[in-house]
Amino acid sequence: MDLATGANGGTAEGETLITWQAPPLKFGMGATREIAYELSRAGVRSVLLVTDPTLAALGLPARVAKSIEQDGIAVTVFDRALVEPTDASCAEAARELAHLDVDGYIGLGGGSAIDTAKMINLLHSHPGRAVRDYLNKPIGGGVSVPGPLKPLIAVPTTAGSGSECTAMVALGVTGLGVKTGISDIRLRPALALVDPLNTVTLPAAVTASSGYDVLTHACESYTARPYDRRPAYRTPGERPLYIGANPISDIWAEEALRLVGRYLRRAVLNPHDLEARAGMSRAATFAGLGFGNAGTHIPHACAYPIAGLVREYRPPGYQVGHAMVPHGSAVVSTAAAAFAFTYPTAPERHLRAAELLGANLAGVTAANGADALPAALTALVADTGGPAGPAEFGFTRQDLPALVEGALKQQRLLVCCPRDVADHDLRRILAASLAG
Amino acid sequence: MDLATGANGGTAEGETLITWQAPPLKFGMGATREIAYELSRAGVRSVLLVTDPTLAALGLPARVAKSIEQDGIAVTVFDRALVEPTDASCAEAARELAHLDVDGYIGLGGGSAIDTAKMINLLHSHPGRAVRDYLNKPIGGGVSVPGPLKPLIAVPTTAGSGSECTAMVALGVTGLGVKTGISDIRLRPALALVDPLNTVTLPAAVTASSGYDVLTHACESYTARPYDRRPAYRTPGERPLYIGANPISDIWAEEALRLVGRYLRRAVLNPHDLEARAGMSRAATFAGLGFGNAGTHIPHACAYPIAGLVREYRPPGYQVGHAMVPHGSAVVSTAAAAFAFTYPTAPERHLRAAELLGANLAGVTAANGADALPAALTALVADTGGPAGPAEFGFTRQDLPALVEGALKQQRLLVCCPRDVADHDLRRILAASLAG
Ligand SMILES: [Fe+2]
Ligand SMILES: [Fe+2]
Repeated sequence: MDLATGANGGTAEGETLITWQAPPLKFGMGATREIAYELSRAGVRSVLLVTDPTLAALGLPARVAKSIEQDGIAVTVFDRALVEPTDASCAEAARELAHLDVDGYIGLGGGSAIDTAKMINLLHSHPGRAVRDYLNKPIGGGVSVPGPLKPLIAVPTTAGSGSECTAMVALGVTGLGVKTGISDIRLRPALALVDPLNTVTLPAAVTASSGYDVLTHACESYTARPYDRRPAYRTPGERPLYIGANPISDIWAEEALRLVGRYLRRAVLNPHDLEARAGMSRAATFAGLGFGNAGTHIPHACAYPIAGLVREYRPPGYQVGHAMVPHGSAVVSTAAAAFAFTYPTAPERHLRAAELLGANLAGVTAANGADALPAALTALVADTGGPAGPAEFGFTRQDLPALVEGALKQQRLLVCCPRDVADHDLRRILAASLAG
Repeated sequence: MDLATGANGGTAEGETLITWQAPPLKFGMGATREIAYELSRAGVRSVLLVTDPTLAALGLPARVAKSIEQDGIAVTVFDRALVEPTDASCAEAARELAHLDVDGYIGLGGGSAIDTAKMINLLHSHPGRAVRDYLNKPIGGGVSVPGPLKPLIAVPTTAGSGSECTAMVALGVTGLGVKTGISDIRLRPALALVDPLNTVTLPAAVTASSGYDVLTHACESYTARPYDRRPAYRTPGERPLYIGANPISDIWAEEALRLVGRYLRRAVLNPHDLEARAGMSRAATFAGLGFGNAGTHIPHACAYPIAGLVREYRPPGYQVGHAMVPHGSAVVSTAAAAFAFTYPTAPERHLRAAELLGANLAGVTAANGADALPAALTALVADTGGPAGPAEFGFTRQDLPALVEGALKQQRLLVCCPRDVADHDLRRILAASLAG
C-alpha cells in the first residue's frame, strides 16, 4: 500500500473522500447585541446592512444599525431586498449601491435578504461580471467566484433557509420563469449569528413555511445519494460543493429532524414559545450545515419551477406586492411523493427520518414502510396549515409539462437523488402531489 | 422586549450564547494524495513540513514531500518534532528554521507534530515573542496571538489528539515539570486533512493511548459544566474558547463515544481493520470538534503534571529517548475516579456516555449508576492493554502533593469541571486512581 498516494484508498468505482466546511457560529438568545463586536473583530469600519421592507417596518434593522453606529462603525441600510430575489433584483441593488465604499456586509432577514447580501458582496467585490455568468449551468455560465469576498455576517430572522451556513444563493431568473442558484465556497458567510429572539415576530404562516424548508433540507440531504456511491472524481477540483449524504451531514440532518419533530408545531401554534423558537433556529442552522454539504434533490428541483411559474398566488402572512410561492411551501408540496419514490433506495433511512420526526413505527418494516415518511410529512404540514400540494398555488395538470421541464433543468440537484430520475418520474411525482 | 439588544435574552445569572468554529475538513481513505492540491488552493508555493523521527523512519514524510514537489511546490522537511513537545523544543525548532521563507505549514504526525507545526508557524509569523508569553496564565503570560498566521494543513497520523481541529497546543514547560497550553482561534489549522490509511502503521500501544485521548476528550466535554450554567460574560471579548458543554459539542461527543465504543478494541487488536481505523479517525476528529469548543476538565488537568513529573517511565510502542507518559495514557489514568466524582452533577449524561460506549445499563438508575461510566472506561482500557493507574508510570503516594499542585495550576481546565474542585478533591481522585 502506498500511504502517500493512498492508492489503495480510492478505487475506480467509488469516491472515498468527504469534504465539509462550516462558518463560525454564534448562537443564542440575545446574540444580536454582539454584531458590532463581531464587525470590529473582522476589521469592518463601514458596513452595508441588507434587509427587507417587512423587517424594516418592524424596526429591527434600525435598532441593529443604531447599536452598530454606537460602536463607531458606519452603517448603510438597504431595506429593499426582494422576497424570493432574482438576478435582476440583485443586479439592480448592486448597481444602486455601487457608489458605496464598505468593507463588510450584514444580511439581516430570511434567506432572501441573506442571499441578496451575498450577491451584492459578490457583485461589488468583483465588478464587471453579470449575475448570469455565475448562475449554475445550464441556465448560467457557472463561472467560479474569481477571488475573496468581503466579510459578511448573516443574521437570520427566520428559521428556514440555512443560508447563514451555506455557500450558495437561490435566485429567480427574470424572463425565464425558473429559479436556480450559485454555489461557491467563497459565498459562505464569515459568521452565522443566530438569535432565536429575532424570529418571535414571524407570522404563523411564515414560521410554518420556513420550517418546511428546514424539514425538507434535512430529509433530502439524509436520503441523498451517498458520497461513496458516486464515481470517484478524476481531480480534486471536480469535487462539487454537494457531495451527497455522508457521516457528517447525516449527524446534522438527524439532529435537525429530531428538533423539527419536537418544535415546529409548537413554534407555529404559539409564536412566543421561546423554547420552540430556539429549537427551530437550531434546526435551521443544523440542517444548513448538513444539506449545504450533502445537497438536496427532488423536492428542491421541483420547487424551483413551482416558484418560477406561479401566476397569481399571494401567500398568507407574506407582505409582498407580487405573485409568489414561499420557498418552504414550494419544496414541501412535492416532498411526500418524492420520498415515496426514493424509499426503495434506503428504507432504513426513510424510516429513521420518520421516527426522528416523531412517527410511531410499531409494526412497520422495510417491506411495508414506504408510506411512513410521506405520512409523517403530510401530518406535520396539515397540522401547521401548510399546502396539500401545488394545486393550492394555482397549478393544474396543464402545468405539468412546464414544471417537469423546469425541474429537469436542476441537474445539479438531481444528481443528488439516490436513484436516477427521468422526466416521467418527475411527472408522476408532480402529478401525485398536485392536490395532495 | 428589545430585539436589537436582546435585553430579555441574557440574564445576570447565566450565559445565553454559544460560539463554535471548525476548520474545513477533508476526510477519507487516500486524502493524503490531495495535499498538494490543497496547498495550491491556499496559494502556498513553499511549505515547511513538520513531522517526527518515527514517522520519518517509516518513509511517509518523504513520500508526501515528493508528491508535493511534483506539483511544483517547494518543501522543507523538519523531522525532529519532539514527542510531547516543550516550550524549549518548539523555540529551538523555530530558531533553527528562522532562515526559511515559507508561506505555509504542514503538521504531519500525532498531536505532537501538529502542535509543533502550529508553534513554529506562530513564532515565525510574529517574531520577537517567546513561547512563554503566549502560554496560558498563570504559567505563562496569556498574550493573544497578535495577527494572522500562515495557512497550516494538519494531517494526523494517529487517531487521538484532535489537534487537526482545535485552536490550541499543549506544551511541557522546561524546568517547571508541568504542561500547559496556548489557546487562540488563530491557531486553528486552515484545513484538517484526515486519512485513516495513515494510521495503519501505528503500534497497538500507540493506537490504544491515542484512543484513550479521544475517549476522555468526549467524556470530559460531554460532562463539562454547561455553557448556560456559567455567569454571563460582561463583554463578548471575555468569552473563552472553551465555553462548556452545549448542544453542538454534545452532538460531536456523543458520536465520538459511539465510535470509540464500537471501534477502539478492534483497531488495537487488529491494526489492519480498516473499518475500525476509519471509525477511530472519525472519532478523533469529531471529539476534537466537540472538546475544542466545550473544554476538558479533571482528567486533562491531572494529566499535565503526570506528564510533567514523570521520572523514568518509557512507554511501550513509542520510540523516544526520554522518560515520557503518552498523553492519552496520562489522561485516562484518572478518568474513572474523575467521573465518579462528577457523576452527581448530571447522572443522565454519565449514564448516556456509558451506554454510548456499549455498557449494558439494564437495572441501572440515576440512584445506583455512579459506577457505570467508570466501569465502562476501566473495561475498555483493560481490554486494550492500558494503564490501571498512574502507579504504572512510577508514581507513588509521595507524589500526590506535587501532582495535586500541578493539576490545580490548570484553572483554565478546572473551570470546565461541572462541580467546584478543591485540592482535597484532586488528592482523593489521584489517590483513588494510583493503582487503579
Ligand atoms: Fe431550501
Ligand atoms: Fe487530550
